[in-house]
Amino acid sequence: MTLNTQFQDRLKRLRKEIDNHLANLPLPELPESLYKPMRYSTDSPGKRIRPILTLLTGEGLGVDREKVMPAALAVEVLHTFTLVHDDIMDNDTQRRGRATVHVKWDMNTAILSGDGLMALAFRLLMETDSPQIGRMGYEFSQAMLEICEGQALDVEFESRQTVSSEDYLEMVGKKTGRLLGLSCQLGALISSGNERIVDSLNRFGIELGQAFQIQDDLLELTSDAENMGKSLDSDIVSGKKTYPMVLAQSGMDSREKSTFIDFLKSNIQDRQAIINAFRDRRAIEQSQQKITVLLENAMAHLRKLPERAANNLKFAVDMISNRQR
Amino acid sequence: MTLNTQFQDRLKRLRKEIDNHLANLPLPELPESLYKPMRYSTDSPGKRIRPILTLLTGEGLGVDREKVMPAALAVEVLHTFTLVHDDIMDNDTQRRGRATVHVKWDMNTAILSGDGLMALAFRLLMETDSPQIGRMGYEFSQAMLEICEGQALDVEFESRQTVSSEDYLEMVGKKTGRLLGLSCQLGALISSGNERIVDSLNRFGIELGQAFQIQDDLLELTSDAENMGKSLDSDIVSGKKTYPMVLAQSGMDSREKSTFIDFLKSNIQDRQAIINAFRDRRAIEQSQQKITVLLENAMAHLRKLPERAANNLKFAVDMISNRQR
Repeated sequence: MTLNTQFQDRLKRLRKEIDNHLANLPLPELPESLYKPMRYSTDSPGKRIRPILTLLTGEGLGVDREKVMPAALAVEVLHTFTLVHDDIMDNDTQRRGRATVHVKWDMNTAILSGDGLMALAFRLLMETDSPQIGRMGYEFSQAMLEICEGQALDVEFESRQTVSSEDYLEMVGKKTGRLLGLSCQLGALISSGNERIVDSLNRFGIELGQAFQIQDDLLELTSDAENMGKSLDSDIVSGKKTYPMVLAQSGMDSREKSTFIDFLKSNIQDRQAIINAFRDRRAIEQSQQKITVLLENAMAHLRKLPERAANNLKFAVDMISNRQR
Repeated sequence: MTLNTQFQDRLKRLRKEIDNHLANLPLPELPESLYKPMRYSTDSPGKRIRPILTLLTGEGLGVDREKVMPAALAVEVLHTFTLVHDDIMDNDTQRRGRATVHVKWDMNTAILSGDGLMALAFRLLMETDSPQIGRMGYEFSQAMLEICEGQALDVEFESRQTVSSEDYLEMVGKKTGRLLGLSCQLGALISSGNERIVDSLNRFGIELGQAFQIQDDLLELTSDAENMGKSLDSDIVSGKKTYPMVLAQSGMDSREKSTFIDFLKSNIQDRQAIINAFRDRRAIEQSQQKITVLLENAMAHLRKLPERAANNLKFAVDMISNRQR
């Protein structure tokens, strides 16, 4: 199943509209040490998946696009904030081909401009004209707290001996999925507080995020693409608990785990040997199966929505199904 | 003018009530690396000036205390968030006799738990039951952005040759005053959107904050108290633009400024020589005069409020007038 051209064009138009709004955010010039890195971050190119989810949900439920836009921009700026702070914590130097904020400026500037982005995200959300504004703000802040939980778990897992596949799914559900869920929820909450719809949209987003993240782990392992695989080495060295890694180590005692990791480390230059090691443990096959199940579950949640909204959101499932890198 | 005993008792009771609420914030135990440092920060003892301002404003305008409490807790948690991140940026190791979060844990933990505190602050605010909730959220996030501006200016000033007294007042008005203004504003917004009152309360808070900060600078310079003066040396070395410093250097060319700073550095062990240097430039006298003017202005803003609310908030002015350390 591929996205039809008409829908592709629609996504492109939405992305362009979001980019225009981001480029014209009403921010002062001064103090320069705050607003320059904030602008640098919001101007950074991106797929704008999250605000597109908000706009498509709202539109599918009959709300004017202009009315949904502030909330859509809010989720994108919230996402941008998490990237700036995560890049400090993960010591990442590059993002989308550009220097990260803490590299281009310094750590203090990255901490403070991240804080500023978070304040801006809330402020954008609060510009929404909706009787549900209190509920939207609560959901937004609660989601943000859960994203922090996801990031905390991710770091904790690196030094933990045993991480189950359930642990992994909780972590990525919070770190990646919750924001996708929130993005959809806000599009619905603007017009109505129908709890069944709001809850289904959150579950949809969480399973979408889990599928996306497992796929990311798999691509990291198996893709030939230039920019993929680079961090595989550092993931193995740092003890990162990717989904294939969690599955491969499942049922091993600590001695077997050490042997497995040692094998990977000593074959770090031989990509095929590493892939085979995961394949022998059925970790790749099971990861692919899990993605399929998660996307089916995500689709099932959509069936609880009005047809137009469900049709609008299917694109996100198709996008993951067809993702090459 | 001193605070009467009855009012002192009232403040003590309010502080205790706030402390109880803070100790019982509904936070999960896990992930431990997120919630333990968050709890450590909210449990840290404090004067609770900001939430007291919110409660006293609300009460003075006839709102039930329980209804104002979520917003009061929100401003205290927002304040706590700024302390955690500022301590990283300023490389401070101690706060109120306890190790700062980035020292007790590490920098990444301090960044992330600060982010969590900010999300929690917003969530607490959103628990407020008020028709003005959207406006409250907007004011909260805008104030937070201005606090970030204040922090950015503070850092920029350290490496800037010329900082005027207006620059200084803008910086501390944002960094310290705006949160005091917000604390009062929220107490008013819960019950009404009377713009004249909301605006007066913000101006009251800003001038209160400016007076407080100038007094802090003065005490740092002149106080004999154990815990004061310790950072005077590092302030002079790092080029910190305190109010007495800005006044002392006013009208100097860059060569005279260097000579003045060199004199201070070479007399760093001789507190009296340093005080005399500032006194000769009339910097201490003028700082004291400025505090008096700011507090008078703050009082003038209170006259635009209903009498009960104005009487409630006078304590904050008295507190600064009578502050010894």
